[in-house]
Formats: sequence, structure tokens, C-alpha cells
Amino acid sequence: MAARRVKLCGWGYEGDGLTPDEEKLVLGRYAERFGLDGFERIAQPQVEAIELHKSRIEPPQKLASICTTETYDRLVHTYGKSFPDYVRIYDSDFTNAPDIVAYARSETDVVDVLEWATGANVAVIPFGGGSSVVGGVEPAVGGGYAGTLSLDLTGLDQIVEVDKTSRAARMQGGIRCPALEAGLKSHGLTMRHFPQSFDMATLGGMIATRSGGHFATLYTHIDDFVESTRTVTPAGIMESRRLPGSGAGPSPDRMMIGAEGALGVITEAWVRLQDRPTFRASTAVAFASFENGVEAVRQLTQSGLHPANVRLLDPGEAVLNGAGDGNDTIVVLAFESADHPVDAWMERGLQICRELGGKFDADAAKNPEGHTEGAAGAWRNAFIKMPHFRDALISVAVISDTFETAVTWDRFHHFHDNVKAATEKAIEEVTGQKGVVTCRFTHAYPDGAAPYFTFQAVGRHGALLDQWNFIKQKASDAVIDYGGTITHHHAVGRDHMPWYRRQRPQLFGAALEGAKEKLDPAGIMNPGVIVG
Amino acid sequence: MAARRVKLCGWGYEGDGLTPDEEKLVLGRYAERFGLDGFERIAQPQVEAIELHKSRIEPPQKLASICTTETYDRLVHTYGKSFPDYVRIYDSDFTNAPDIVAYARSETDVVDVLEWATGANVAVIPFGGGSSVVGGVEPAVGGGYAGTLSLDLTGLDQIVEVDKTSRAARMQGGIRCPALEAGLKSHGLTMRHFPQSFDMATLGGMIATRSGGHFATLYTHIDDFVESTRTVTPAGIMESRRLPGSGAGPSPDRMMIGAEGALGVITEAWVRLQDRPTFRASTAVAFASFENGVEAVRQLTQSGLHPANVRLLDPGEAVLNGAGDGNDTIVVLAFESADHPVDAWMERGLQICRELGGKFDADAAKNPEGHTEGAAGAWRNAFIKMPHFRDALISVAVISDTFETAVTWDRFHHFHDNVKAATEKAIEEVTGQKGVVTCRFTHAYPDGAAPYFTFQAVGRHGALLDQWNFIKQKASDAVIDYGGTITHHHAVGRDHMPWYRRQRPQLFGAALEGAKEKLDPAGIMNPGVIVG
Repeated sequence: MAARRVKLCGWGYEGDGLTPDEEKLVLGRYAERFGLDGFERIAQPQVEAIELHKSRIEPPQKLASICTTETYDRLVHTYGKSFPDYVRIYDSDFTNAPDIVAYARSETDVVDVLEWATGANVAVIPFGGGSSVVGGVEPAVGGGYAGTLSLDLTGLDQIVEVDKTSRAARMQGGIRCPALEAGLKSHGLTMRHFPQSFDMATLGGMIATRSGGHFATLYTHIDDFVESTRTVTPAGIMESRRLPGSGAGPSPDRMMIGAEGALGVITEAWVRLQDRPTFRASTAVAFASFENGVEAVRQLTQSGLHPANVRLLDPGEAVLNGAGDGNDTIVVLAFESADHPVDAWMERGLQICRELGGKFDADAAKNPEGHTEGAAGAWRNAFIKMPHFRDALISVAVISDTFETAVTWDRFHHFHDNVKAATEKAIEEVTGQKGVVTCRFTHAYPDGAAPYFTFQAVGRHGALLDQWNFIKQKASDAVIDYGGTITHHHAVGRDHMPWYRRQRPQLFGAALEGAKEKLDPAGIMNPGVIVG
Repeated sequence: MAARRVKLCGWGYEGDGLTPDEEKLVLGRYAERFGLDGFERIAQPQVEAIELHKSRIEPPQKLASICTTETYDRLVHTYGKSFPDYVRIYDSDFTNAPDIVAYARSETDVVDVLEWATGANVAVIPFGGGSSVVGGVEPAVGGGYAGTLSLDLTGLDQIVEVDKTSRAARMQGGIRCPALEAGLKSHGLTMRHFPQSFDMATLGGMIATRSGGHFATLYTHIDDFVESTRTVTPAGIMESRRLPGSGAGPSPDRMMIGAEGALGVITEAWVRLQDRPTFRASTAVAFASFENGVEAVRQLTQSGLHPANVRLLDPGEAVLNGAGDGNDTIVVLAFESADHPVDAWMERGLQICRELGGKFDADAAKNPEGHTEGAAGAWRNAFIKMPHFRDALISVAVISDTFETAVTWDRFHHFHDNVKAATEKAIEEVTGQKGVVTCRFTHAYPDGAAPYFTFQAVGRHGALLDQWNFIKQKASDAVIDYGGTITHHHAVGRDHMPWYRRQRPQLFGAALEGAKEKLDPAGIMNPGVIVG
């Protein structure tokens, strides 16, 4: 039903991806990293070759025009974009394919779907960009339902209203980031929220999963940009008042932000916007010591300078991103403004770095185009291409995944060392050889950092799922044991539920259950996620 | 039981207040404002003269040592500090006095009180600073309970742990602001949260009511400083993990922040702190046009300069605070930092003001002690003394009260003009003469402002409560009708519930009920507030 078909296996749309030369380069680099001559490569499955179980349910006449049971539609709504998702796609394992895919074209469609599903005991899985890496959109709901329906929201793709005075816009939940930014550009505005899933992610999906965006400090999550929400629940529509701030009871929006579709479908939101920045300064600072790099980020976040970017790359991560020689810890520091030159900000920021032994190119720091050059530029390019890299790696059985968290400064080093060691140990134990575990900061706070770990290992076709599960479990256990959160911005989904249950106050779980009983009395909304 | 007894009638502790000379000055100024020769003054009631109904319930043996039914204790736990509270105190109306006052000395005491009250069907009213101006602590719970217990938490007054690295502290919920700041000072830290109720307010009370603090932009509510919370509910203890940021499900803290004691008692919190500022710049900018003053605040909040203060006073408000001649709109602009000189920030801020016709003393703006001088200094002094002013005014039947809200920039002027007109009309209708309605901004956001209205009128002893009610209702109706929130930082309490119900999404009300059924199944926690 879409103009451009999304890929069954891999990132983005059919036809997108790495060129054969880029792919060769990537695979060559990884073979070298792991000391191998080359890789055994397996082929992607073809839609036509996949046998899918028959749909167990039929949509009612009223919904027939927006529903389909076609194989392609069901296949591309079975999984998100996680490593284990990809492995199972290669295995042609579509056990949990939805019985029906409904393409909502209006809020009324959403209301109608939820009403029918409530009566028919059909589990509804809201599906936005489909870029979940935590099992958030997989219809794995157990045996308690008559069937499953994946509710595709990308038809709700309009910018409804723009308020330039307050710098805010009312937009539909299914609009993808590229369309959203293109639409706002004509008003001189931008949301400036650039998750790595930018190409695919939808506004409603990002709000439901507490997406992490462009700004490394201050406005880290999309939470801060949400002015009001409109959510369709099985019990009716819940819309909050548009307000710049309020102290009237607990925030209604904050209950929907992070509910991951378990309480309803976010069909619209008013979102706070930015003017397009015209003043920029960005540079990469190299620290011989990891500790000093971390200390620089701590001092920068506590300085009140509010840098737009203050990403730290440990030496291994810097190498992965072509931004270092493998010895130095790199801190990418950037300021931007639509209002004023940022020289005074950058000058003080670099002074903090210099006092901690940081080295940088003083000329590049003053260059307003610095953000597209040098280490900072290399980082940006790699960041945008990254989802495609993984497509190539999976076909050759390289286990390549990430996990991310947040922890207060006082326990950071203890946490970092133990989580890294637990992950390295798990890799060696389950694959028989050493892997690579690196760390960067995606976001940072006055009271702590959001470390983002990448792990890579040579796996084995046929055993990949078990190997990944083993590593993921050991890493997640360590994250919780040493005081982190199971996710800073990748969300909980189905994959993180065991650790989310350990992290979440038990009584808060009960409170969420109480809320769900009122909003979704039949329990049809994304079962198994967040609540329960 | 307290070392210094709090006043029965008025602000603060016995012995505190205006000097006779100050009082004379204030009353003289008000007589002049309303064109009167003087006022009829009534006397304050004396504790000894008040006849209080007998307690309907008795505490169990286990709690006897922390409970009292003494008249003084019950009287000072009947009301907060609102205008209608004061009127009823002058009338010696203590109909809703709690049957028991319990002074918790430990978290275990809180657990024990909630356990007993759940079994005995006793309504529990958490009582922190007792500075509610919205009926949040009055045991007006209807006839469905065996009795009422006011749970005084000021015995939980410890700073438990300080983490200098992450700039955070774990503190008990009953600690008052002055003790909290004094304790943090020895660590070189500060919470820098200065509500007008600073002298009395407690940490837990401020979190439960979403207190508005020192910073006019960015970190406006205490919400932003809460790192984690520990809450005793009738169902058990709920403690969130200490994290600088998280994307794991809806925030558990955000459900407790603003619950105003209806879900439990906040006994501890980890709070993010500030370094003590050493660089400051502050000045007052005068605008001949109110519209340009407002526009300056809009541009300043959208600039990314993040001023610590950007308070706007309309001409009438400026006069009330001794900071203007009655013609100009004043914007108090201030920057502060513990890390860097703020010259570049102030320079750009003043440039914005200048381009909109703002006039200021360029020398004072450069003076690091500027915050204690001129209009800015006058404002600070008046702010701190203000609660005492009202004590004097009530005794002479001057109706003097405030209400505050927030609204997006696009509708601000329409909102402001209509709310002001509705309040002025109500005053004239119910008192027979014109009153004074002024407006300032306490906080401001990129997408809107938090206007704070003051209204003053000559009332009549014996009719004050009805007169105030009439004005309050008309003003609150206008706030809701024209798109505001019923409160930006004064909380909901019992007084704002009718408008909170209109503002709150109906289904969010249901969700809160669902949560309460799990945390407080007997419904004993602060009944009538927030939930229901």
C-alpha cells in the first residue's frame, strides 16, 4: 500500500543501502578486526519463498478497506530492526506474524479498530516507523487472544497546524521524521530531533518510546518537546491541554510518554520546535586518558553552558567511527544557536577541556562549518550510515549490537568497568573468542551520563540467536546490578521486560496496571509491553 | 512539640512579622490606594478562646507517643495559608480541624500511621510546611470517614547523603528549605529553589505540589530537580532508581510529582543541586509598552540564553513592588553562573530588549552586585516580605490574593485581557467598587509564559468569604475558558478541584483512579485532592 516498499530484511526502503564497494570495504575492515580471511555469507530470504500461516481472524466489513492479510504486509509488520529480529528474518521464522495489518488513514480508523478489537479479543500492536530494536512491535502476545492486528499508523502523516509565535506545531502521530522536517522547513522551523532511526521513525512512535534526539544535554529526550498529546484508548480519546508548563496534578502527557502503545495510540501531538541554527561551533577534543575525557564531560554538563553536543567516544569507539587512532578518548563538543554567536560558550568549553589535558585544533573550533569537518564530521557521516552497516554484518554472522543506559557520575567508572567486563566475558564464553566492546556517551546530564555500548563478535550461522541472547542477558544483568537503567532511549519493548521489572518500583507496576484497567479494560493494547 | 511555635493566624513563627512601623506604612499605602481614611481593624483570635469539637477517634497504643489531640496542635493543622483560610481563622471556624495530629519522627512512623488509618477508616492528610494556598492540607473530607489525622512530617528533617560528584543529595521529605540550604552550604552546594513559602516549605511538600522555584526559565518547577523519590503508600513503599535520565517506561517519579499526597507520602528524595553562583548580572529594563515587554520575554526565552530571571511586571505590579512609576512595564533580567562570567549572555539579552525599545541603566547591568540594587533589589525584598504584608491586610478586610497560570504565546494577550477584565468585573460586582488587578510573569518558556495575577479590593468583615469566592470563581472560569492551566505552581488542593476536573483529560482522571485503587485501596490518602 506504500509508494516505496520498506525492506523485508534490512534498514529502510527497497533499493536503499550500501553500494557493493561500500559493503566490501565494511566487510574487509571487520575481517581484519577479527583476524579472519573472510566470511561465510548467507542469502536473504525472498518474500515469495516464505510460507506464512493462514490468518486466524477476519476483519469486519467496516474495516475491510483498510485491512489486509497479504503476505508481504504481514511479513514487514512482524519485526522491528533488532539483531534477533534480523536473525529470525534470515531464518524465515515468522511465527508471530500479525493476522491482519490495518493501515489507518484517520483517527476514526484508529477508534474503529480499537473498538472492534476490544469486542473480538484481538491484540493490537501499534506500528509506526517499525524501527524498534527491543521487540516493541512484534505480535508475540501469547495464546490468550483470538488473533493479532498490526496497526500501521504511517497514513496519519500530516502537519495539521503551525504556531510560529509559540514555535510549536500540531502533527499527526504517523508522520515520519523526514516529512516532518521538510514540512516545518517552509515555516523556518525545525524539530531538530535526529534519532539514528530518523529515516523511518514516526512522531507518535518516538513519543511512545521516549526517543533520544539531537541535543546531548538539556533537551535529551523527546519528552521535553511534547506540549500536549492526543491518544486514542479503547475507553475513548484522551487529549491534554496545550500548555507551556503546568503544576496541576501529575502530568497527563508523562503517563503516555513511554507507555509504548500499552495504554493507547498517540494520534496527534503539539510539539515544541526550534529556530534553524545559524551560528555553530564544533570541534573534537582528544584526551590521552579516558578518565579525563569523562571528567571533561562531567564538568561541561555542570557548567551551565548547555552544549548541543558533548559526545564522548572511548578509544575503541573512536576507531570504529574513523575519529581517532585508538589511543585517545575523543569528546565531540558543539554549540549552536539561531540567536547569537557561540564563541564565548565554546571558549569556556575548550578551557575546561584544556585544563584536563584535552588537545584540539584551535582553528577548527572557530570555523563555523567545523561540524562537517574533521573528527566531528566523520562521526556524523558514520552515524547516519550505521543502520546499513549492520545489514551487511548479519549476513556474515558478525554479531553487532548496542545497548545503552544512564548512570550517575559517582558510580560511572565502577559501572562502566563492570558492564564492559561482563559483556566481554559473555562474548568469549559463548563464541569462544574475544569480541570488541566499546563505549560512547550519547547524552549527558549534570548528575550523570548516558553510556552507549557497542559489542561485536564473530558468531556462527545457526547459533546466532542463542549467542546473542547469552550476551544480551549478561550485559543487561550487569546494567541493572551496577545501578543503571535498562534503557536510556531505546525503550523497553518485549526484550527488556525482565530487567524493566527489576528496575521499576513494584508498586509503580501495580499503578500502571490500575491505569490500564481503566483505559484498556480488555487488555488488547500491545500486550506484554510495559504493563504486567 | 516544635521548638518555635508556628503562628495560628498569619505567616511563619510566633514573634515574626512586620514591625508596628512597617505595618502602619503598608496600611497607609493601601488606604491611599483605595481612597479611604483608614480601616476598621478586627482582632486575631486567641488559641485559648477557641472551642474545638472533641476528637472523634483515638490513636492506638502503638502510635500514642507521636500523636496528640491538643487544641493548639489541631488548630494549626486545620488550615494552610490561603485568604479564605485566614478569614475562617479570624472567624474562629475550625469545623474541619483534624481529630488527631501525628508527628512522624521516622519513615516507620509513617508506615504505621497509614497501616492503622487504612484499617480504622481514618483519612490521612500529609502536612509539610502547611503553606498550601489551595486547601491542600485542610481535613475537609466529607462524612465517609471515622475521623481525620493530620500527619506532620517536619520531624523527617535530615540530609541523609550528599554526592558532590553528581551534585545531588538524598534528603528527607519533611526538611524545610532554610535547614536544607544551611545543610548543603557546608558542602558548597545549594538547591537554589526559593518559593515565596521558603521559610516554611518542606522538600516533600514541594515535590508533591510541583513547586515553582528560583529559575524563571529552564528549571522552573522542582520536577526537573527530582532524581528519585521514595514514597510510603498504604500498599507499601515505592522507591524509584536514582538515574540522571531514563527511557524505561513512563517515569515513576512523574506520577508522584503533583499527586499532592493522594497516592502516598514522599519520605525521601534524591535531588539535583547547583554550585553556588559566583558570577551574576542583573538589571531592570523599562518598556513604555506592555506588548513590547511581553515580546522581549518571548524573544529572550526563545533565544537559548536561559536567563536565571526574566520576570515581567506590568505597570501596576511594578508600582506594588516599588519598582516603577506606574507607566512602564518592567522586565527584570538576570544571569548567573558558578562557572563563567555572564557578560556575553547579558549583552545579547539587553540587545534584544534594546531593539524592542527597552530602557535600562547600562552601568548597573555590568555591576555584579546589581541583583541587590535598584528595581531588581526592591523586587527581591518585597518578595520575601510579601506573606507578612497579607497578614496585616486581612485584619482590615482588604481582599488581597493571587492566582497564577500558564498559556502559550499565541494566545497570551487575548487570555491576559480577558482574565484581567473578568476579575475586575467580579470585584466591582461583589464589592461595589473598583479593585486593582495586576499581572507579572513568574516563569517563562519558549512556548509561553506563566502569568501571575494579583487582585486587591476593599471587602467587608463578615462578607469576606463570599466576596472572595465570587471573585475566585469568575477568575478561575476565565483562566480555563481562555486556555490556561488552573495552576502553574500553587497546586490544585481542594480549592482548584472544580477547574482541575475541567482541565484534566477525563480519561486521565480515570487512570489516576486506577492507580490509586492499587496504592491506596481504602482511599484514605488526602481524600478529595487530585483523584476523583
